[in-house]
Amino acid sequence: MRPFADRLCDAIRAKKSVLMVGIDPRLDLLPPQVVSAAREEASSEAEVAYKAFVRFGREVIEATQEYAVAVKPQLAYFERYGSLGVRAYEEVAAAAREAGLLVVADAKRNDIGPTAEAYAEAFLGEASPMAADAVTVNPYLGGDGIAPFLRVAQRGGKGIFVLVKTSNPSSGQFQDLTIDEKPLYHYVAEAVDRLNEETGESGYGPVGAVVGATYPEQMRVLREAMPRTLFLVPGFGAQGASAADAAAAFDADGVGAVVNSSRQILYAYRDDAWQGLDYREAVQGAARTARDQLNRALERAAGA
Amino acid sequence: MRPFADRLCDAIRAKKSVLMVGIDPRLDLLPPQVVSAAREEASSEAEVAYKAFVRFGREVIEATQEYAVAVKPQLAYFERYGSLGVRAYEEVAAAAREAGLLVVADAKRNDIGPTAEAYAEAFLGEASPMAADAVTVNPYLGGDGIAPFLRVAQRGGKGIFVLVKTSNPSSGQFQDLTIDEKPLYHYVAEAVDRLNEETGESGYGPVGAVVGATYPEQMRVLREAMPRTLFLVPGFGAQGASAADAAAAFDADGVGAVVNSSRQILYAYRDDAWQGLDYREAVQGAARTARDQLNRALERAAGA
Repeated sequence: MRPFADRLCDAIRAKKSVLMVGIDPRLDLLPPQVVSAAREEASSEAEVAYKAFVRFGREVIEATQEYAVAVKPQLAYFERYGSLGVRAYEEVAAAAREAGLLVVADAKRNDIGPTAEAYAEAFLGEASPMAADAVTVNPYLGGDGIAPFLRVAQRGGKGIFVLVKTSNPSSGQFQDLTIDEKPLYHYVAEAVDRLNEETGESGYGPVGAVVGATYPEQMRVLREAMPRTLFLVPGFGAQGASAADAAAAFDADGVGAVVNSSRQILYAYRDDAWQGLDYREAVQGAARTARDQLNRALERAAGA
Repeated sequence: MRPFADRLCDAIRAKKSVLMVGIDPRLDLLPPQVVSAAREEASSEAEVAYKAFVRFGREVIEATQEYAVAVKPQLAYFERYGSLGVRAYEEVAAAAREAGLLVVADAKRNDIGPTAEAYAEAFLGEASPMAADAVTVNPYLGGDGIAPFLRVAQRGGKGIFVLVKTSNPSSGQFQDLTIDEKPLYHYVAEAVDRLNEETGESGYGPVGAVVGATYPEQMRVLREAMPRTLFLVPGFGAQGASAADAAAAFDADGVGAVVNSSRQILYAYRDDAWQGLDYREAVQGAARTARDQLNRALERAAGA
């Protein structure tokens, strides 16, 4: 299969969009009619979640497939309901891939040796029920925690995104500790870009980086330090970063990154801006708006 | 419920054992008769794994419950088979808790805010199908990635184990980077022990630490630096650390830690030492031996 990085950049050019929609389903935020319909047919809370998440996930995919290049299901919200929740994830991920969207499983998995390989097979093995196009990976365990993910990814044209600098307020507690005038996340960044260099592929390699849009200065430094690395950019929208902040993640051709928005799209029906619309229309409107905001910011950055 | 740390120390005293059995089920290592019996009744590879893992997990629990205080199911090997694999985990975890064993879900989960809370509810919420007594957590995202796990744990007398210094060869790549003469893992260790201090509980707090037995010098330093923190010690057995190495994790009373062994117990039937025995007898023999080796090392350490 064509490598993940190329498939992502192709999709960005074909759809003229750098938007990734985060699928973070929560029973307390879903449209009430979706939850109550699920409740009528279900005999347990896990079954309510299963039915509601599959329906809502499919509706979000349908409403956003024109405006987004990828979806990022957040495993935590599915796992919250055990194996039935995971089954909902499987069905949503399969529906997204059928709709031509790339699927990045936001699982932040990490382990070593054969255990890391088992996680990699779970998310990147083509025959796996949980198969996605890429998975997020936590680097704390070092290189022998990342290598098994990379091996499985390369075998099938899949990708991984390693956490480098996350978007949360306390991300600096360990990530910003400074060793010889460089923060820890910079060492992780160098290791990630080196892995791509070692694959010998031209252009972007199979190892991406998660870099929060909430730290735009650090984003600019990292973009320069990681020329072979795709960025997955969280923090745009509900977490407070602007489209201009996110634009710093892109290369001169306007590719090389993808920008995630979750709550602001999924739960747009709760937003004053979309009052009176059906929740699916609100999702669609919010996705279109996010795509357009990002494209305008990229145009301004290119013109600057 | 009585706090997790107290329940673990009670169990260590009552059973005179510090052994935790890691449940890492792999179709390529399971006793062939278990896999072939599952294959006869199954219509997919995931179903083979589900049936084989539930049967083998129950047999391991039965064979080791006298010699171990806890089991540590490794989520990766279950997730490898998607939602059916996760269902096998649920059944194995429930069986272990029924058998009076503490269950530490080795999931190394990590995220922030409500997402971290969803993971915490998945593994520590009492009504969750995946409920365990404790879960392993990766600290790379900083304090606001750990706080939601701790909140949910404290609510229900559960625990968490934060990765501090892992047992793998490349654990030093990031964990040993030195800031003001102290390695990164030492900063994580200090943050963990401070969280326990802030709970105001006497004795061991709800936040444990994963510290590999393969680095005995660092273990001794960390044991002193973290007086309020339970240790989960991997690396004993198949990974090469001795019982004496692991003994450095304990306090003067011989409690405050638990030592994991996975492959050397689960797959003892493949070992020359247990040739000719039924695989369940081999598991039992290997667990008894591991318990005795650890107890002798603790006695020697106390006498030294």
